[in-house]
Amino acid sequence: MLSVKNVAELAGVSVGTVSRVINNHPSVKPETREKVLAAIEKLHYVPNEVARNFKMQKSMMVALLLPDIAHPFFSELTNYIEDELDTQNYKMILCNSKGKPQKEQYYYDVLSQNMVAGIIVITFNNVEHAIMKKIPVVAIDRHIAHEISCVTSDNYAGGRMAFNELIKAGVKRPAFLGYITNVYLNSAISEVHTRKDGFCDAAHAQGIQYACFEIPDDDQTLEASLEKIIISEALKLIDGIFINGDLFAARFIKQARAHQIRIPEDLKIIGYDGSRNLSWCPPYMSTIRQPIETIARTAVQLLVRSIEGETIKPDTYRLPVEYVQGDTT
Amino acid sequence: MLSVKNVAELAGVSVGTVSRVINNHPSVKPETREKVLAAIEKLHYVPNEVARNFKMQKSMMVALLLPDIAHPFFSELTNYIEDELDTQNYKMILCNSKGKPQKEQYYYDVLSQNMVAGIIVITFNNVEHAIMKKIPVVAIDRHIAHEISCVTSDNYAGGRMAFNELIKAGVKRPAFLGYITNVYLNSAISEVHTRKDGFCDAAHAQGIQYACFEIPDDDQTLEASLEKIIISEALKLIDGIFINGDLFAARFIKQARAHQIRIPEDLKIIGYDGSRNLSWCPPYMSTIRQPIETIARTAVQLLVRSIEGETIKPDTYRLPVEYVQGDTT
Repeated sequence: MLSVKNVAELAGVSVGTVSRVINNHPSVKPETREKVLAAIEKLHYVPNEVARNFKMQKSMMVALLLPDIAHPFFSELTNYIEDELDTQNYKMILCNSKGKPQKEQYYYDVLSQNMVAGIIVITFNNVEHAIMKKIPVVAIDRHIAHEISCVTSDNYAGGRMAFNELIKAGVKRPAFLGYITNVYLNSAISEVHTRKDGFCDAAHAQGIQYACFEIPDDDQTLEASLEKIIISEALKLIDGIFINGDLFAARFIKQARAHQIRIPEDLKIIGYDGSRNLSWCPPYMSTIRQPIETIARTAVQLLVRSIEGETIKPDTYRLPVEYVQGDTT
Repeated sequence: MLSVKNVAELAGVSVGTVSRVINNHPSVKPETREKVLAAIEKLHYVPNEVARNFKMQKSMMVALLLPDIAHPFFSELTNYIEDELDTQNYKMILCNSKGKPQKEQYYYDVLSQNMVAGIIVITFNNVEHAIMKKIPVVAIDRHIAHEISCVTSDNYAGGRMAFNELIKAGVKRPAFLGYITNVYLNSAISEVHTRKDGFCDAAHAQGIQYACFEIPDDDQTLEASLEKIIISEALKLIDGIFINGDLFAARFIKQARAHQIRIPEDLKIIGYDGSRNLSWCPPYMSTIRQPIETIARTAVQLLVRSIEGETIKPDTYRLPVEYVQGDTT
């Protein structure tokens, strides 16, 4: 039976392009459209309605699996991922795992029933065993397997940058504050943890002593964990903290102020992320800004090329970060 | 031909429940599962693999059409919508329209190709003509058509509440600041605009003069529009503003402070929304908090009941709001 593949071969284009022509998508160049229409005519190809719908649903849908759509970093990232997918004529299914391994597992099971053409995944759990290698996958911030590309910001450079900016701002006794996540013990698989490595390496290089605070990544116990740090003797020795995330930093500042700790006079703070909608809110965090839009578009472009048949050598794409001066340093 | 409908009838359950049993979804009660399995056995029903996949994709997918996933109100709402859909065994396709009518139109065209079982829509454009009545639709914050239910917060009460709280906080010359959107001219179709009505009616009832500022809902020109208001003679007469959204209020405050306007000493501010992730950020806005989770779950439950065959009388569900005292009043 004649298929869209025969049309694609004759026209010298990808199956995806033929599908876009059939579905009248505006993104196809006129000359490409003509080539495809000529091939369809020559072969007397009639797209079967049901098969076409079925195929289209399957092949033009991409799943985004992430831990928390309500978090400003993830929602801004999602905004750009959806926009780039839309540009490329794909629709997005959002799978919000809340970081729960069993919910992620459930999503993998559903997605593996051939529902989607590809998956973009951001997870903090160990999911190597669950990812099926049948369909293209691109990870953000995580190394899932050797065959899967990872797009991330240059977290290591970001950690170094945060350390150096704290010192430039006059900090003498710096500290790092981060989360312990499920993937913590195997830090090689989470790019996010290299922020700490960058911070510590910069400190060692300059021979400066520093402290490390690490608390569980648990929304329910966060306030209690922060309280312990804020009232600790250890914090009294500290005059600047790099906090691994702006929202995390905002929650820390809220609690620190309740204890009459002045920011930045008593304690200077640098966050991480630089997501746009938090940037409107005082105290206008000094932060390491990730290129959120570029991370999103790069991940989608890699995935789509892979879906459309290109062989892509798996790699890690570390995109540059920048320091944004705010009111907290 | 035997269909899933025959199984549903014999088992005395909905088609959706049979589908859930076939797909091994954990949400089905054991006794229901047994009834369905007994009916399947009695009828010698064998689900056709392709038909089943096709049907499942079609029937277990719900589209959420909204203007801006990066906005904290929408991302928190999406979080709960996805969670409730997941509980009910549906997957969510996210359509991010950026408020552009042509992008919404494109999504309607795609969705109307029978891709989804239902749509939850939040739009600020006039889309009555575009919504197809073939599949269930529930709107949030908007009256789209008489046949479509609308779930929203009690915006009118929220506007009254904001006015009364400003007065309680000592404000003598209050003002309202809102957006002019595409649906503005026909305020009956946007519930959001009734916040202003509530505010104005409360002012009239108390015989208090007030001012109204309204600017275009355009991210590109927002700073310039706010600047005009902040340096205006009119603002010098004002000592309290109800601003239609917390993020909007945060952006106003950022600019007002650059002009040495002190919040709350010179100007008291009450926002609207109360989304969780903005609540960590100083200055801890006084705000009218919407029941975001309840709005999300109510909309999904209405939609799913409708998808699963129940006849639901279209109605408007106005959910109660509450005042949250922050540092800006």
